[in-house]
Amino acid sequence: MRNIKLVLEYDGTNYHGFQRQRGEVTIQEVIEDALSRLTSEDIKVNAAGRTDAGVHAIGQVVNFKTSVRIPGDRFAPALNSMLPRDVVVVGSEEVDKAFHARFDAKSKLYRYTILNRKYPSALLRNHAYFYPYELQVERMNEACKCIVGTHDFRSFCAAGSCVKSFVRTVEHVGCTRQDGLIVIDVQADGFLYNMVRIIAGTLIEVGRGKLSPDDVREILGARDRNLAGPTAPASGLCLIKVSY
Amino acid sequence: MRNIKLVLEYDGTNYHGFQRQRGEVTIQEVIEDALSRLTSEDIKVNAAGRTDAGVHAIGQVVNFKTSVRIPGDRFAPALNSMLPRDVVVVGSEEVDKAFHARFDAKSKLYRYTILNRKYPSALLRNHAYFYPYELQVERMNEACKCIVGTHDFRSFCAAGSCVKSFVRTVEHVGCTRQDGLIVIDVQADGFLYNMVRIIAGTLIEVGRGKLSPDDVREILGARDRNLAGPTAPASGLCLIKVSY
Repeated sequence: MRNIKLVLEYDGTNYHGFQRQRGEVTIQEVIEDALSRLTSEDIKVNAAGRTDAGVHAIGQVVNFKTSVRIPGDRFAPALNSMLPRDVVVVGSEEVDKAFHARFDAKSKLYRYTILNRKYPSALLRNHAYFYPYELQVERMNEACKCIVGTHDFRSFCAAGSCVKSFVRTVEHVGCTRQDGLIVIDVQADGFLYNMVRIIAGTLIEVGRGKLSPDDVREILGARDRNLAGPTAPASGLCLIKVSY
Repeated sequence: MRNIKLVLEYDGTNYHGFQRQRGEVTIQEVIEDALSRLTSEDIKVNAAGRTDAGVHAIGQVVNFKTSVRIPGDRFAPALNSMLPRDVVVVGSEEVDKAFHARFDAKSKLYRYTILNRKYPSALLRNHAYFYPYELQVERMNEACKCIVGTHDFRSFCAAGSCVKSFVRTVEHVGCTRQDGLIVIDVQADGFLYNMVRIIAGTLIEVGRGKLSPDDVREILGARDRNLAGPTAPASGLCLIKVSY
């Protein structure tokens, strides 16, 4: 069997997240359905990150096994002719048989976008979290310094999540203001459930002055989800890149 | 009667253009309906530019007369609570009784966005024209130099348009590449029907090598719509700013 890697861009607005669910339209379903039609095989994909409902991606990576004899780079155009316009394959190639999109991912970069101005945006209504109150980006960046590194991120994980370890290494967190937008980039070797959205929600509390940058250090140490800020809305989140 | 000015942002994807039309949903209709509900008066708005179906705006300007006693700056939040999410009032103020959004506009800036990469974009599917072939931006900018100035723009006006004069002054035209995007900014004292989209379509022909920058000078001089490039699709166009 050949092993094919795809890079996906999608607008998550109209999908119930990546992972296949009975009775809901998901990214996995539309990709697997297109692949199954293309190959006449029953295709299952592995994804680097299982994005939630409403979360977007410009660099999601999946892989799948097939015996069909389509050149690796031809999967992208062939699939795009079958996919809805809000799911696009932006690259395809044949990879080593051992490659696994999730297990081999060394790090992933997520971006959380806040629309920080007086009025909402018609054009960004599904791609940024509208937050009209003043945010101090310098304070947010101070708090980011506490988050970088290898920590137990239980405080930044949705309650009830079943994982063996809450330890992850955050390689980079930074906030940048660009016109009316504040962009939070988070790069880590792995992410807990809702981790970026809870980091974003907590950084917003810092930016607004409800928490101090030092509070974030304490919240991290307490390993208690109740102490961190709220989970910021899904629409602001985008999976930018997966590195192998 | 008081005179109120609004600045509008809208996603034109789901609208049949700005101007009210029987049996079609238009921006003018949703704005006037919201204003009429808010004021209990029959409100008619004047718009700076009548954008076509599928064309977007971040800085459309309208004005209207009312006798209602709402402070000028309160119209924006009041209207936003009644409008669909793809039409947003981003500013409102009371202005001089003589102000007219269209007749008083000194210049307007439109932006045409081309997605110039191998694959389409899920996120920009309604906000950029996907053009996958190589474009030479330097050539396009050479051609822009012929367009700047006061000219008869009949070659860049949709056939059948009834206007007294085809003479307009283009203050600026420029093409910029930003990652996979090519952005064409056109600022003029006024625009003929489809003028920016025909300029964009013609510049694309230049960028691709089908026309030379000098050809554009000849096309302009010929005053014949048939010689210019095709009308580029509506989705790439956005009204950025109206200056008074």
